Amino acid sequence: MASIFTKIIKGEIPSYKIAEDENYLAFLDINPNAKGHTLCIPKTEVDKLLDLDEATYSGLMDFSRKVGKAIEKAIDCKRVGLTVIGLEVPHVHVHLIPLTSMQDATFQNKVKFSDEEFEEIAKDIKAKL
Amino acid sequence: MASIFTKIIKGEIPSYKIAEDENYLAFLDINPNAKGHTLCIPKTEVDKLLDLDEATYSGLMDFSRKVGKAIEKAIDCKRVGLTVIGLEVPHVHVHLIPLTSMQDATFQNKVKFSDEEFEEIAKDIKAKL
Repeated sequence: MASIFTKIIKGEIPSYKIAEDENYLAFLDINPNAKGHTLCIPKTEVDKLLDLDEATYSGLMDFSRKVGKAIEKAIDCKRVGLTVIGLEVPHVHVHLIPLTSMQDATFQNKVKFSDEEFEEIAKDIKAKL
Repeated sequence: MASIFTKIIKGEIPSYKIAEDENYLAFLDINPNAKGHTLCIPKTEVDKLLDLDEATYSGLMDFSRKVGKAIEKAIDCKRVGLTVIGLEVPHVHVHLIPLTSMQDATFQNKVKFSDEEFEEIAKDIKAKL
């Protein structure tokens, strides 16, 4: 069965897209740790980060760097953290999280936004790409 | 003032080394979230991940991939997570954390090992490089 992220890539599930190229997609996490929390994924559906072939891994990290720099410019934070855990959705995803405190990195405090707010956040980040 | 990691690079502070090349160093985190928790750092002292130049960033990620694969072979876990936060030590460091549960990724549960146990863990990981 296709992962929820593959459904997002195909457009079967809507998302707030930030960036996309032939091989990768970035979109807002809809259950964010902090404002601007973004996921970067390879379009190939692989479960574990370290199982990606070297080129796909390196490409994903470079793509995440570009998106992270845009987030750092668009969102008020101390820095953007980068985290790959992957115990929940079996499709590699890099979390880019605007950090103000260590708490923002723990996935235990969540923040909520309206559809309009998510659209605005995505627009602000895209403007810095 | 030199960061604690620069002191480790220079050998002024001892560490349980895992891997080293001209530009990067990997060593065990001495306050680990889980057995085998390792830090990968660039030898250049830069505070924020996204401030690394593109080549140093890509090199660090490739180095972390190689070390992570060795950890995944050496340590019993579901997968190795990769996290960059950096709010505490102002010298870029990639956490490679053997994950069994989400809790291992939160930096809130810590585990303790003796000097002999750390030596053994480092030896086991190095054997898989």
